[in-house]
Amino acid sequence: MAEDGILRYSVIEIIPDYLDEYLPFALEVGEISMKTEPGVLAMYPTVSKEDSCKVTILEIYSSQDAYKSHISSPHFQKYKQGTLHMVKSLQLLDQNSLNPNMYINSGIIHNEK
Amino acid sequence: MAEDGILRYSVIEIIPDYLDEYLPFALEVGEISMKTEPGVLAMYPTVSKEDSCKVTILEIYSSQDAYKSHISSPHFQKYKQGTLHMVKSLQLLDQNSLNPNMYINSGIIHNEK
Repeated sequence: MAEDGILRYSVIEIIPDYLDEYLPFALEVGEISMKTEPGVLAMYPTVSKEDSCKVTILEIYSSQDAYKSHISSPHFQKYKQGTLHMVKSLQLLDQNSLNPNMYINSGIIHNEK
Repeated sequence: MAEDGILRYSVIEIIPDYLDEYLPFALEVGEISMKTEPGVLAMYPTVSKEDSCKVTILEIYSSQDAYKSHISSPHFQKYKQGTLHMVKSLQLLDQNSLNPNMYINSGIIHNEK
């Protein structure tokens, strides 16, 4: 990761009526980003066990340029424009790694899709 | 990860006066856990860019037994008992992975220590 890389938790609250519709969008953008964008070092979505409408995505971009490239990609724009009306709130919680001796990464297990 | 594994974000708010004292405890417990406990699949601490007293730790345990073993370990107990008075609040936010096709892991980059 370059000095201007981004390590972020995006916390997204989905409007309950749209939950089933939202999830495939989140899955698709994550998978395509990990498969096709070398600058997306991690993109790992989870859903709260207590509140299934609360999604957290761990995102790591190698640089500001990688992030700009990501948000202008067709797959991100499909996700963003397609889900705008489903999202109640969005927090972008930028982080610093606490331990320079540690790494984290995410990826795709299966390539059948 | 077994069916009873744990995927969690621990969100810890540190009392500002204790921040410098807290951080080495968090680093130590993370490193020793990753190095010595095969059941600790990830333990990755970050600190909010907006609020340096807000620490988030991504934790993955392979099973409930692995978690029980972790919290009874000497290194965790040193962290827990040593930092109790430094912690303003602690949230344990248990998650489900949204995408079974994705993995995430963390580890130690250098082994000099």
